[in-house]
Amino acid sequence: MSVNDYLQQNREQSVAELNELLRIPSISAKSEHRADTAAAAEWLAGRMRAIGLTTVEVVPTAGHPVVLGEWRGAPGAPTLLIYGHYDVQPPEPLDEWLSPPFEPTVRDGKLFARGSVDDKGQVYLHMKAVEAHLAANGSLPVNVVFCVEGEEEIGSPNLAEFLSANAGRLRCDAVMISDTTMFAPGLPSITIGLRGLAYMEVRVQGPSVDLHSGAYGGAVVNPANALAKIIAQLHDEQGRVTIPGFYDRVMEIEDAERRMIAGLPFKEEGLREEVGAPKLGGEAGYGPLERIWVRPTLDVNGLLSGYTGEGAKTVLPCRAMAKISMRLVPDQDHQEVERMFTDHVKSLAPEGVTVEVEALHGGQPWYAAPSGPVFEAARRALAKAYGREPVTIREGGSIPIVKAFEDTLHAPVVLIGFGLPGENAHAPNEWMSVDNFHRGAEAIAALYDELR
Amino acid sequence: MSVNDYLQQNREQSVAELNELLRIPSISAKSEHRADTAAAAEWLAGRMRAIGLTTVEVVPTAGHPVVLGEWRGAPGAPTLLIYGHYDVQPPEPLDEWLSPPFEPTVRDGKLFARGSVDDKGQVYLHMKAVEAHLAANGSLPVNVVFCVEGEEEIGSPNLAEFLSANAGRLRCDAVMISDTTMFAPGLPSITIGLRGLAYMEVRVQGPSVDLHSGAYGGAVVNPANALAKIIAQLHDEQGRVTIPGFYDRVMEIEDAERRMIAGLPFKEEGLREEVGAPKLGGEAGYGPLERIWVRPTLDVNGLLSGYTGEGAKTVLPCRAMAKISMRLVPDQDHQEVERMFTDHVKSLAPEGVTVEVEALHGGQPWYAAPSGPVFEAARRALAKAYGREPVTIREGGSIPIVKAFEDTLHAPVVLIGFGLPGENAHAPNEWMSVDNFHRGAEAIAALYDELR
Repeated sequence: MSVNDYLQQNREQSVAELNELLRIPSISAKSEHRADTAAAAEWLAGRMRAIGLTTVEVVPTAGHPVVLGEWRGAPGAPTLLIYGHYDVQPPEPLDEWLSPPFEPTVRDGKLFARGSVDDKGQVYLHMKAVEAHLAANGSLPVNVVFCVEGEEEIGSPNLAEFLSANAGRLRCDAVMISDTTMFAPGLPSITIGLRGLAYMEVRVQGPSVDLHSGAYGGAVVNPANALAKIIAQLHDEQGRVTIPGFYDRVMEIEDAERRMIAGLPFKEEGLREEVGAPKLGGEAGYGPLERIWVRPTLDVNGLLSGYTGEGAKTVLPCRAMAKISMRLVPDQDHQEVERMFTDHVKSLAPEGVTVEVEALHGGQPWYAAPSGPVFEAARRALAKAYGREPVTIREGGSIPIVKAFEDTLHAPVVLIGFGLPGENAHAPNEWMSVDNFHRGAEAIAALYDELR
Repeated sequence: MSVNDYLQQNREQSVAELNELLRIPSISAKSEHRADTAAAAEWLAGRMRAIGLTTVEVVPTAGHPVVLGEWRGAPGAPTLLIYGHYDVQPPEPLDEWLSPPFEPTVRDGKLFARGSVDDKGQVYLHMKAVEAHLAANGSLPVNVVFCVEGEEEIGSPNLAEFLSANAGRLRCDAVMISDTTMFAPGLPSITIGLRGLAYMEVRVQGPSVDLHSGAYGGAVVNPANALAKIIAQLHDEQGRVTIPGFYDRVMEIEDAERRMIAGLPFKEEGLREEVGAPKLGGEAGYGPLERIWVRPTLDVNGLLSGYTGEGAKTVLPCRAMAKISMRLVPDQDHQEVERMFTDHVKSLAPEGVTVEVEALHGGQPWYAAPSGPVFEAARRALAKAYGREPVTIREGGSIPIVKAFEDTLHAPVVLIGFGLPGENAHAPNEWMSVDNFHRGAEAIAALYDELR
């Protein structure tokens, strides 16, 4: 029996197995689900053993355990590390689910369950690909190491340390992650870029206490007005960020990628309707996808000052606060940007107030040139499974762990997503396309052959 | 016995009587104190009868009652209406009071109690002046009408209607109000101007729901950034408000008042220390007192958008809100300013967001030229009681009821305050200068003679 025949004939069984995993409410954020995260880890380890991985272990961490499973029976062949996570987001609000979050249900070709696409289904299709090779041929064309953690949804607090501590055992030639989405149904996609983040808090202090706006207004510099003035100066008329040096390290988009983006099935009006704004906007000279994927940005995430309740209170507030974050693109460095932002904001502070700036959170942008043997193998395998050439896309958000894998294991990372737009990850009624689950397993199985 | 001798000899007794009133916790804002506000009204009515007012009545309103007391035994002489209030602010936080708020205590010549200066002491000194005349002479040189309400601290919701309904009974030649402060100890002061108010709320809506700042940031117009840009454009580099037409009706300060202000015992550094700001600011070409008293201003009173809790949340907020109020000076009209503000703010709205503007609260500015028989009489009486010429001052805040008296009773209003800077009205440890209580009664008693 061929690998593909095995996958085809076991489709029902594959979904039944995945459903066992989906029934475990492995919510990493809630301590009362500790037994469930442990159960999910043990379930995965059990399946890894069952399909023939040779070194399977549930490794404890300071938080939830990491499941490791290896097959290194192809000396000389490349080694793939497959990363994913078995933990899930809390399912609330429960009353918005059409079927219970931990009772997997298929409707219209969609497998509804918390964790279906994020990320249990995407992890398990890799395991099915391995199983198919081992069942059909007794061996794999490549070496594989699974590394499935239980803390992704709470920020992977223990993973970077785990990777460092186990770098030898995890040695590999490439890292594969399936925790992203395809650009459109039927359009296989490889994600080659992620934006970084520099998240700042700006605190402006005027008088030492809140004042009566009648008794003092006009003679005292208002910190909320001052903050607005500072924020307004952070963009120019072209929508560009005014921080000196901000664009110095920004990698300009290459013509090839620009053409690729222009060729994607994307309608600006569709995005506008999706977000519900009267009009889209952004930096002059770039289209919406370019603005989200390849250009850095600066957004206010929060504003607070004075009286914000109902009605009128005539207070001249003593302080004003803004949370402001910048999405970064290669080759910006979040620590450098944090320094530049701090210096610039302080230089904009008017007399009469004092300004404090704090960096709350940062992460580096990531980019992988669409080339090299693993990328090429993935491209061919996806083309075979989906009957069309994959596109390369980026994401506007960040997946901090990607950079950690690259830096710790010194291996390229390939992001192949089998999610779809509208899949409701993190929201009620999360689903994964059943077809993508099966086709994904076929694509990954083909990828192993392509890497041989 | 002369009027003055009577006041001198009854000083102890006067404070003892005032203390009876101060012991009544007549907090208008709290319904559980309804019996106390009623008791304070009855106490005042009782004292009015005792001192010889001829028509005394506690008049019910939809809220707390108004106490009326008249003496119209001087046909042909002018009639003064004395307005004040017997209700007080809540005393909280209680643990900051050095002596209990409703147990009047004298320390260092200061009578500490909630309501001492705001406004029970300032009302009662007028009653002592009347009492002294009636006791010494059996008559008054002028006619008087007391109108003491119990809802000033909650915005006088029923007073304007009361004035209209009782305009005949309240007919008078001038209205006197003692609910303000002197500029400095020993410096008698007549307040000739109050600022008005136009209090607005600006709501900026971008996308229809909060978005992930990574997934959408850069392509969607951020309403918080847009709001900051709008606010920043409301002032020019000179600190002037940019709303077209905003200054058209502003009465420029006259040289005489400018000299008066320049002659006041005022130190900019003292104000700076008082508010605790690193530096004062405001409109170019004006000093701090001018900026607060005779110039209109625009201040943000509140800002709210997105995530304002601890740490970093990467939200692109769907809306942003600002409360923005303008203090107005004669002859600005709050309704006209509200319209101009609304038009201007909407004209500043960038594409990609919608902007709503709502007027929440408004009041007219007030100014009384320092002239006319009552002003002159007050000037002479204060000079006699304090041994120095009074100054004319303004207040940056608003006392909406002043305009209501003027408009309803068609009589000039004279504001003579016997409070002092630092008296803690509305705060813990409110006090009134005992000396000012006595001297105030003497000044008012002298004023009646001056008006004869």
